[in-house]
Amino acid sequence: MKIRFYNARILPMQTADDTVIHGELWVENGVITLLGDPTEPRPTFDREIDCEGNVLLPGFKNAHSHSAMTFLRSFADDKPLHNWLHEDVFPMEAHLCGDDIYDLTKLAVLEYVSGGITAAFDMYYHVDRIAQCAHDTGFRFVLCGAVNDFGGTGESLRHDYETMNRYDPLVSYRLGFHAEYTTNESLLRDVAALAEEYKAPVFTHLSETAAEVEDCFRRTGMSPVAYLDSLGMFNYGGGGFHMVHPRVGDFEIMKRRGVYVCTNPGSNVKLSSGVAPIEEYYRAGIPVAIGTDGAASNNCLDFFREMFLVTGLQKLTVGASAADPVKVLHSACSVGAKMMGLDDCDCLAVGKQADLIMIDLKTPNMQPINHIAKNIVYSGSKTNVALTMIAGRILYERGTYAIDADPEAVYAKANEIITRIRKQEGR
Amino acid sequence: MKIRFYNARILPMQTADDTVIHGELWVENGVITLLGDPTEPRPTFDREIDCEGNVLLPGFKNAHSHSAMTFLRSFADDKPLHNWLHEDVFPMEAHLCGDDIYDLTKLAVLEYVSGGITAAFDMYYHVDRIAQCAHDTGFRFVLCGAVNDFGGTGESLRHDYETMNRYDPLVSYRLGFHAEYTTNESLLRDVAALAEEYKAPVFTHLSETAAEVEDCFRRTGMSPVAYLDSLGMFNYGGGGFHMVHPRVGDFEIMKRRGVYVCTNPGSNVKLSSGVAPIEEYYRAGIPVAIGTDGAASNNCLDFFREMFLVTGLQKLTVGASAADPVKVLHSACSVGAKMMGLDDCDCLAVGKQADLIMIDLKTPNMQPINHIAKNIVYSGSKTNVALTMIAGRILYERGTYAIDADPEAVYAKANEIITRIRKQEGR
Repeated sequence: MKIRFYNARILPMQTADDTVIHGELWVENGVITLLGDPTEPRPTFDREIDCEGNVLLPGFKNAHSHSAMTFLRSFADDKPLHNWLHEDVFPMEAHLCGDDIYDLTKLAVLEYVSGGITAAFDMYYHVDRIAQCAHDTGFRFVLCGAVNDFGGTGESLRHDYETMNRYDPLVSYRLGFHAEYTTNESLLRDVAALAEEYKAPVFTHLSETAAEVEDCFRRTGMSPVAYLDSLGMFNYGGGGFHMVHPRVGDFEIMKRRGVYVCTNPGSNVKLSSGVAPIEEYYRAGIPVAIGTDGAASNNCLDFFREMFLVTGLQKLTVGASAADPVKVLHSACSVGAKMMGLDDCDCLAVGKQADLIMIDLKTPNMQPINHIAKNIVYSGSKTNVALTMIAGRILYERGTYAIDADPEAVYAKANEIITRIRKQEGR
Repeated sequence: MKIRFYNARILPMQTADDTVIHGELWVENGVITLLGDPTEPRPTFDREIDCEGNVLLPGFKNAHSHSAMTFLRSFADDKPLHNWLHEDVFPMEAHLCGDDIYDLTKLAVLEYVSGGITAAFDMYYHVDRIAQCAHDTGFRFVLCGAVNDFGGTGESLRHDYETMNRYDPLVSYRLGFHAEYTTNESLLRDVAALAEEYKAPVFTHLSETAAEVEDCFRRTGMSPVAYLDSLGMFNYGGGGFHMVHPRVGDFEIMKRRGVYVCTNPGSNVKLSSGVAPIEEYYRAGIPVAIGTDGAASNNCLDFFREMFLVTGLQKLTVGASAADPVKVLHSACSVGAKMMGLDDCDCLAVGKQADLIMIDLKTPNMQPINHIAKNIVYSGSKTNVALTMIAGRILYERGTYAIDADPEAVYAKANEIITRIRKQEGR
């Protein structure tokens, strides 16, 4: 499949700058083959798309999600993390089967592609069913290990790592565990041993609440970052989801080990967890990616809201110039890809995967065109997503999904699942 | 024009509850004539709309805006209020003429109706041109007096009050001045005298920044609320835009005088002004409306973002149960109408103005349907606005404007204006 975009404004996001190129972008077999002004002879394309001056940029990388948690959207609200987890999430999740997870993940995929998200770093159970969903929909999933005291072992993690990394070009798998506070030290050491064996990074929920950090200090005399590092967990890098409450010493460890931060401000405000010090991470040179977390806590999977929150909450807590919007856009498109190991999906350049979106500028919220990147971060909305392409395949275009799934059937399934589980739980 | 909506879920929002009625809603000559199950014989309608189970609710009331400031979207960013005003806003605004304001307001109207906003409480110059825009587009504007030391007198305020309140059924005018910190006491006394004469409420920017409040204390020994009240400003009620930094004594004055708060969280975070204590206002029984402020500070005019910020920032600062989403939705739809004096536009009921919107539930971010009001506040987006009706006229429907204005021409005009003013200002 060969596709030509022309009359485009292109924001390649190769670095955190707002350079806009005017011209064309060609895609062949899922890969970008030209960007800018064509000098070579034009091949025959299967489709030519007039962008009419609209913007092409790399898709948003949702660097922390629990996609199947869509079933709990607007069900488990208005509680702090601990109560939310133990009173609502864990009891309801206990009734989910693999088929449920497949269907609920599909619902999230519809939300992702219609909102310009081209990949998700997904931590959930039944990873084979999430992988199948990637295969069936064409969406790109990086799966994250989630072992903890309630499920999973070093061996199961190894099994998933080995099988999922060979499953499909759209699927990859990274070592991970749920959180320090849900995983005993013996299991943590098993994860660290696998990191050593595969020379691989490890990802986990990290320093999300003040209580988690204090509790770890009480038990280990160290912050969660320092404690995990003392087990060799980050010898090959990795990342912390949330990282709302770092201790001073954590910065040095994270820099030295190459540990990424994935911030989830929508979830953090709603669960009253706090504001992650993103401006400090930026200044310290610690790479920051962005995630939506699951729909149970956020409640929507919307990168426009997340980007505004990333910058807005820093302005609120640090000052009006904090969290430069171009840096935030770079975090959303590019840093997330690097955190997830999607080195070929981080920017628009020849040879990179064609994971890209078209942003419609011909809507009132994008006018006048004073500054495109600022318009996207400060004023953008899902209404601006005109097209979403993953691996060279258009999955969404102006309200229509090119996915082998009837949206109304997906919605009906999600309603069926939550209705059944409510009955099972008697609530 | 007679319109029948059927197969609807209806959220009347007559109080801050989430009651959903299933049935029909009839509109005749701009007024709601039936809600629920029809028992009377069905008249002939000009149009019958199958809502397919989607939600009808009162439109959002943008209770504080400077609509024409669209020209500075993504132009004046990343600065705190004082610098933003004096370095960017005031010098650029000085070049605006009445025609500019008409065109730039039209751009905001397109953004309003496509985002489900059915009325705006607009504080800007050349009110006659904003009123003309209301007339030409069918949008409902409540104009707010904006006199201050740089323009306007008691007499000009009286003139505008008399003429604009007779201009068009879609236009009304309320007494107001820019802010305590931009208006000398003699002019403030003139405004208060008009309030007394008309027995009318007065509206102004109020206690937006900590510096403003401290400065007022230094000069007058009182908070801005107490100082203005001491001049008789709120003898007939009124409202404060922003109200981020109340002093303890302000609560008693506001309750006694019936002073509304209009909160503008998008603008407040972006200008680093702080978080208004909305949960305290709710608990004190002080009515809270919501506004977007202008596009120069926010930068979009999006009530979904504002509603999430209203509740999210309270959860962050007070606790996860703060700012109940149903209350927030009631603030957005109903309290704003009451603040603006639009007593016939505050809810869906027989005899009320047909100022309403249809929210599409058949999108991934609204599924499953666990709780409609929570879905709207926590997960809603402009993509969910399927239809916007003002005074019984459909102005927007699924991507198409029924407004006598070519959107592309409106965008071109806005770009022309900012380009010209940039040249005039040499920047």
